Amino acid sequence: MDSPARPAPAPAALLYYVAFSQLLGLAVVATTGTWLGVYRGGIAWESALQFNVHPLCMIIGLVFLQGDALLVYRVFRNEAKRTTKVLHGLLHVFAFVIALVGLVAVFDFHRKKGYADLYSLHSWCGILVFVLFFVQWLMGFSFFLFPGASFSLRSRYRPQHVFLGGAIFLLSVGTALLGLKEALLFELGTKYSKFEPEGVLANVLGLLLAAFGAVVLYILTRADWKRPLQAEEQALSMDFKTLTEGDSPSSQ
Amino acid sequence: MDSPARPAPAPAALLYYVAFSQLLGLAVVATTGTWLGVYRGGIAWESALQFNVHPLCMIIGLVFLQGDALLVYRVFRNEAKRTTKVLHGLLHVFAFVIALVGLVAVFDFHRKKGYADLYSLHSWCGILVFVLFFVQWLMGFSFFLFPGASFSLRSRYRPQHVFLGGAIFLLSVGTALLGLKEALLFELGTKYSKFEPEGVLANVLGLLLAAFGAVVLYILTRADWKRPLQAEEQALSMDFKTLTEGDSPSSQ
Repeated sequence: MDSPARPAPAPAALLYYVAFSQLLGLAVVATTGTWLGVYRGGIAWESALQFNVHPLCMIIGLVFLQGDALLVYRVFRNEAKRTTKVLHGLLHVFAFVIALVGLVAVFDFHRKKGYADLYSLHSWCGILVFVLFFVQWLMGFSFFLFPGASFSLRSRYRPQHVFLGGAIFLLSVGTALLGLKEALLFELGTKYSKFEPEGVLANVLGLLLAAFGAVVLYILTRADWKRPLQAEEQALSMDFKTLTEGDSPSSQ
Repeated sequence: MDSPARPAPAPAALLYYVAFSQLLGLAVVATTGTWLGVYRGGIAWESALQFNVHPLCMIIGLVFLQGDALLVYRVFRNEAKRTTKVLHGLLHVFAFVIALVGLVAVFDFHRKKGYADLYSLHSWCGILVFVLFFVQWLMGFSFFLFPGASFSLRSRYRPQHVFLGGAIFLLSVGTALLGLKEALLFELGTKYSKFEPEGVLANVLGLLLAAFGAVVLYILTRADWKRPLQAEEQALSMDFKTLTEGDSPSSQ
């Protein structure tokens, strides 16, 4: 840990922000659970409560886990790059599997009730998130984990991967907000304007969701919090720079 | 334009992306106008149509103009920094004034109809956008246009200003999506699930809004599209770097 070859420990402010993001993320999950438990009768697969599986899975998978998957490069700064990549990919797999359960839950619920599918803006955005998430994972795996892609190809694709990853995460948060609003208006109707406790709790949940998205985005965009290159990565990068005469991968 | 002291012209890809963002932005405004004109009876101040002033003003002010205000540093790359700053600040003033008209419209409409105010997640997010926008503008003016702040203070505040500006813009887009959903569900109710033309048009508007937000964000985050330092700014920056012995403002 204190070997001279390793970079300095993580900045203290980064650790505080990461801790704050985790508090917000857990608050989002707990508030969703409270909302579904107190006002929507809880969760079950084989009943009308099957719908409630949908928001809980989406919040855990596509908001909390996806957000944390983006933070691994900031948190695990001194571990081997490959270990961090595998963790990043695995967290996305967990997030996807949990979100898939949430997706099956709502389609199955609609089928049993005879409701129409895919008519709302929430559902259109949700399907878009799923498709982009899946394509992004496959592309990320092929470029960064599968040993086929060249260093130059990886360097060229990396900024696109990073941007699209952030955008998919933000679209997930936005889609969750749309879904929350839909669930509120369908159930509360005009009672929403009477400051019903369920409406107020759901509004607080919405603000927590937006705050979680903002804090994760802040951590990801702070230039001085980016993962430092390890000694061996630096050597590789320098070699490449020399070979390509100034075409540095970090400037891509 | 071809003076050797001036940096190279803007990258061609940046110009295509900016053009695409403007097409999307105009499509958002036009689709909003079509939706309000065709399905909501158009716009007027002294009638039930007063409500319709609200979405139109918010889309023009807090989405289109705010987005464009963020892009001025990418578009006007070779103009004097101060001119670009003044344009950036002025576009925000226009955006704020138009949004204020939209805000007054909805409060006035609610008052005349006897509806409750500020109960929904959309309204909470909207007020948050207004407060943050106003504070951000005041802080930006004090630090960057008012001649009081030192170079070192500006350099320290700049990354916070840039991040918060992007976050307020994204929250504005998210709040517009929530408002759109609210307006749809209040009016269409269960007809929304029958793929009514109004619902489909509004969903398309929602996707256009999300796409505008994504393209603006992409342009802002591309590291190689950032505004290059002008010759005189570079000299100042170097002087400062020498004075503070390595405490470079660009690394803040």
